[in-house]
Amino acid sequence: MPCDPRHDILFEPVEIGPKTLRNRFYQVPHCTGFGIGKPYSQAHHRAMKAEGGWAAVCTEYAAVSLDSDEAPYAHIRVWDEGDRAHIGLMAEQAHAAGALAGIELFHSGAHGHNADSHLPTLAPSQIASDYNGFVPRAMTKADIRRVQADWVRAAELARDAGYDIVYAYGAHTYLLGQFLSPFYNQRSDEYGGSLVNRARFWLELLEMLDDAVGRDCAIAVRVAVDAGGAEAGIPLEEGLEFIRLADRHVHLWDVNIGSISEWSLDSGVSRFFQAGWQLEWTGQVRRATDKPIVGVGRLTNADQMAEIIRSGVWDVIGAARPSIADPFLPRKIEEGRLDEIRECIGCNQCIVKGDSHGHLGCTQNATAGEEYRRGWHPERFAPAENAGRDVLVVGAGPAGLECAIVLAKRGFQRVHVVSADREIGGLLRWVPRLPGLGEWGRLLDWRRIQLQKVRRQVELITCQRLTADDVRAYGAELVVVATGATWAGDGLNGVTRGPIPGADATLAHCLTPEQVMLEGKRPPGSRAVVYDCDGAYAGAGIAELLRAEGLDVTIVTPLERVAQSADDALEGPLLRQHLHDLGIRLVADHTVRRIAADGVEGTDVYGDPFELACDGVVLTTQRRSDDALFRELSDRPGDLEGVYAIGDCVAPRVIADAIWDGHRLGREIDSEDPATPLPWRRERTAVG
Amino acid sequence: MPCDPRHDILFEPVEIGPKTLRNRFYQVPHCTGFGIGKPYSQAHHRAMKAEGGWAAVCTEYAAVSLDSDEAPYAHIRVWDEGDRAHIGLMAEQAHAAGALAGIELFHSGAHGHNADSHLPTLAPSQIASDYNGFVPRAMTKADIRRVQADWVRAAELARDAGYDIVYAYGAHTYLLGQFLSPFYNQRSDEYGGSLVNRARFWLELLEMLDDAVGRDCAIAVRVAVDAGGAEAGIPLEEGLEFIRLADRHVHLWDVNIGSISEWSLDSGVSRFFQAGWQLEWTGQVRRATDKPIVGVGRLTNADQMAEIIRSGVWDVIGAARPSIADPFLPRKIEEGRLDEIRECIGCNQCIVKGDSHGHLGCTQNATAGEEYRRGWHPERFAPAENAGRDVLVVGAGPAGLECAIVLAKRGFQRVHVVSADREIGGLLRWVPRLPGLGEWGRLLDWRRIQLQKVRRQVELITCQRLTADDVRAYGAELVVVATGATWAGDGLNGVTRGPIPGADATLAHCLTPEQVMLEGKRPPGSRAVVYDCDGAYAGAGIAELLRAEGLDVTIVTPLERVAQSADDALEGPLLRQHLHDLGIRLVADHTVRRIAADGVEGTDVYGDPFELACDGVVLTTQRRSDDALFRELSDRPGDLEGVYAIGDCVAPRVIADAIWDGHRLGREIDSEDPATPLPWRRERTAVG
Repeated sequence: MPCDPRHDILFEPVEIGPKTLRNRFYQVPHCTGFGIGKPYSQAHHRAMKAEGGWAAVCTEYAAVSLDSDEAPYAHIRVWDEGDRAHIGLMAEQAHAAGALAGIELFHSGAHGHNADSHLPTLAPSQIASDYNGFVPRAMTKADIRRVQADWVRAAELARDAGYDIVYAYGAHTYLLGQFLSPFYNQRSDEYGGSLVNRARFWLELLEMLDDAVGRDCAIAVRVAVDAGGAEAGIPLEEGLEFIRLADRHVHLWDVNIGSISEWSLDSGVSRFFQAGWQLEWTGQVRRATDKPIVGVGRLTNADQMAEIIRSGVWDVIGAARPSIADPFLPRKIEEGRLDEIRECIGCNQCIVKGDSHGHLGCTQNATAGEEYRRGWHPERFAPAENAGRDVLVVGAGPAGLECAIVLAKRGFQRVHVVSADREIGGLLRWVPRLPGLGEWGRLLDWRRIQLQKVRRQVELITCQRLTADDVRAYGAELVVVATGATWAGDGLNGVTRGPIPGADATLAHCLTPEQVMLEGKRPPGSRAVVYDCDGAYAGAGIAELLRAEGLDVTIVTPLERVAQSADDALEGPLLRQHLHDLGIRLVADHTVRRIAADGVEGTDVYGDPFELACDGVVLTTQRRSDDALFRELSDRPGDLEGVYAIGDCVAPRVIADAIWDGHRLGREIDSEDPATPLPWRRERTAVG
Repeated sequence: MPCDPRHDILFEPVEIGPKTLRNRFYQVPHCTGFGIGKPYSQAHHRAMKAEGGWAAVCTEYAAVSLDSDEAPYAHIRVWDEGDRAHIGLMAEQAHAAGALAGIELFHSGAHGHNADSHLPTLAPSQIASDYNGFVPRAMTKADIRRVQADWVRAAELARDAGYDIVYAYGAHTYLLGQFLSPFYNQRSDEYGGSLVNRARFWLELLEMLDDAVGRDCAIAVRVAVDAGGAEAGIPLEEGLEFIRLADRHVHLWDVNIGSISEWSLDSGVSRFFQAGWQLEWTGQVRRATDKPIVGVGRLTNADQMAEIIRSGVWDVIGAARPSIADPFLPRKIEEGRLDEIRECIGCNQCIVKGDSHGHLGCTQNATAGEEYRRGWHPERFAPAENAGRDVLVVGAGPAGLECAIVLAKRGFQRVHVVSADREIGGLLRWVPRLPGLGEWGRLLDWRRIQLQKVRRQVELITCQRLTADDVRAYGAELVVVATGATWAGDGLNGVTRGPIPGADATLAHCLTPEQVMLEGKRPPGSRAVVYDCDGAYAGAGIAELLRAEGLDVTIVTPLERVAQSADDALEGPLLRQHLHDLGIRLVADHTVRRIAADGVEGTDVYGDPFELACDGVVLTTQRRSDDALFRELSDRPGDLEGVYAIGDCVAPRVIADAIWDGHRLGREIDSEDPATPLPWRRERTAVG
């Protein structure tokens, strides 16, 4: 289909200094877990976006100095010639796919970890980092000149390695931002005090970069134009004034808000931030510059993007998370295939998986991060050798649906998805109805549309609960069991390694999430305790829902913090503040050891006893796999050619892992042993 | 000097299956931060111990299966032939130095992170991990057979790569230990229930390993023979019964106590555990086996080691931390140089630096982890090109003393260390007097003895405070400023980025750690608040000290937990329990914003106000570098050839970093720019 003419504006080229963006789609720098250690994963992941139509793709943060060492967090190092080959791979592959390549040069300053180097951190002033508590060295002028020289050398090295766009990255309150902010910069020399003084380090650097590489590369500045309510940055008017001061040496303004301690304001979860929320601040940058501006805000809607461009506030649509969820977003808009866009749901699993020292993943897009090591392409699927088989998928939750879609794309013509429930979706029938999680419904939306497109290959059958005999007699050679998992009704938990005495969800005063969300069960009184050993969205979500219904709600958790898992997704502090503001009591470090109709009792972290009166207890202790069918079929497969389990039926995990698991089986259904994941290509240290 | 005859027993060889240990010193497996990604650091670090006399050196944990992926924690992978060259480097270098090489093969089971692989974790039963909260897949029998086969394949690969000792590692409640413990293993088949059933997986594996590699390699089993009070393991009598069951397939029993959640019981800090504390349990293993037994317990005293061997309870002295603090411990005992042993202080900085996703370091031994990348040898020092210069070291704290010693070993003949204080040691004058930190005094002990040995080269001068003019006129060409840091008396902290209104340590009700410890200052009343933004040993230590003097003490911290930094050193929970049991109130997540003579006030994590009445406030908010002298000399060096700052005078950090910094300058005093650390050899991913 052709591009909607209203979206044509998105495909105009944009000049940035000596380079030209082929359209207005720009993958801003974002972390992946690849860094300098996985240069092939890095190159292939970014190149996939280049293939998908992005005009430019950028690296994650790339340190210019030895004392900007972010280990254990994956990061790029541009320290010496030995790094050239590693960083060059990505530039080369981006170019091959028609995109410009950008590198986000930076120095961490006070927020460095230096866990590898063991060197002291640096900062404008000697004040403990509000991010990691380390006390830095207050930079001497020699330090300032050394870091500036490191930056120029790194920029030259990056240019020589093929990069088109070179950053002076100071957002997220890294070193340049630290100098700019009076919160960090309390110097009394010419690098502190007035805005001009606080900007001096950055301005000098830009002039040096412009001189050194400005004819060959576009100079980009990433700056948080407003602290977004945090103390650690600058207010908007100072952000705009900085832009005016620096403008003549800058070819592209990459603008956002917040700080590293308030990174949650930039990479905001959908629970608290609507698409485009940053426009309130970054939409005003035009007042300070005529240079190209790129902004972000979890944008996935082409109409909204076109409107932003037409309004003149930005020139380029930046994206991190939407480009992970769908590397082909630009091409799909260009080809009028809007319904095929995998829209980011704003869950921040990319950050959990990529930044928390792992390897990038995505709830919507199982292929994210697997481009190189598993050779997965989000839009291309090799025909399966056994595509002539009939396949029965039991269960229509995220794993089962994903698997069926992949099987269809691999050429299977007869796939039946049979669900015991009236509606498809598994836990997606209720999770998106938890307060704030509405966008998670996009997981099911996208898969519904895909299933519609392969409807001649995949048949959906609901309200049919199959026994093992039914399955063996069904007529399919291959069976995929995707029956999910259920919250334990007996309080089973990993802290006490067993059920909780008195916990029994057949009783009125004990409730599981499914009972609350699907059956409408409520506590038989006004005082509810949510006992949460899980720490993710379920406990907090049900607490908020019950509170909204007027109940008196307390969340009790044996974990160190309520909703602890939310911390890695950058929403822990925001979520706890939100729950607190709603009047929900938060009690961490408390283990429930007995439940009765009138309350719970247990011990706190010191072993001291506690009691809490209530009328009902919601149990989010852990889930159990619904794997009875799989185990029965495994033990007696009859004539079945293959029986496989996927998703939460294997082990209850985050939704991203369930979808990934279904995707993997679809990709490997014709391997020698589809039950065992194939090894992946590893990137190893050079030896010998 | 000759070996003390009482220690001769330590140098007897010990047969372990087909191999022979040349003596009774054995470096048990321990983490380093190197893993499979830094094979050269791994090889050189272990080989240094081989050179220092250890009869065997072992790797850290080495995963046998794809779904035992410990990322982000550095670990070894023995997954396929591609790993052979990487693991082989260490075996080769250990052999070259006369030691056997062991590899700690393991599967993480329920406690895996699988952050890289994205695969589900495995466990005997589907109960959430008490370590990381993930819910595992309950292993099918096919899973059991697959993991056993992976293990055998890994053992064969390790043997082929040159390893002499192959582990079936189940301590720290990894997979084998999970099967053994009824806490994790709630199976109803032949792999669960009775001890024999719970041991079955491990016993089958040992038979398979014995068959496969038992003629070529010693089979070692690392097992926690007692949960040490934790719920997660087994009681001692079951541990001994397991040893009896498995004994015929085992050549070496590597025994300890505790679990992964209670790792603090194994790698115990000196605050809570005396050398040899594990003997209460592991000293009983002899009741179950005649095979060689190796045990651990932070042993550094040769008399105690010899006594243990003579008593017959163990055959081999195992060590992790003491081998890091002094790789040459065996040789020094053998040569009668007991006074030169760098005794481990039990601070667990090796764990903080190595395991918390960084790179191994050690407070006592600055060369730990630097053997390959910086080429540092703990006992050998290259003569300095500028050794003819006179050097003035200003300050006699850990950094200054370490630097002076290194300079002397590099051939400098005239080094003056001038201290303004009456006693040398800097903060070591008082830190070891904090409750529980007595062993930290070994840092100063070792350096005093070393200084005695180089007394003709290094002169110590105390009670002299030098001005910049004094220094310029002193007559030394090279000046090293090591003047340390001082706790802020005005409450300067990284949370509010400034002093605290009302904080002033010149007043009676505000106290700094130095005032408390060196001047005997005490709060003018019975109620003390320790306001701790630092989270390390100082705040907790002074709280305990004041409590022991009968005061009513509350620790208030803006951090999420009291003594938060202690968590990485495995002592956080123990320390908080200890403080609680002493009657100290612990208040986390509270920021003090004003201090008065009658109390403190501020806001909690939700922004809600609080007040707390007290008579005095100890401020452990942050330290400031005492760098005025350095800055003055840097600005006007006069005729000085070089002026350098080291240690806390650069940036206040942990003692390990201060010592390391002094050591580094000593090593690099003749480099082109000694003020800037030299780059180190990096281990990079293979490309091209």
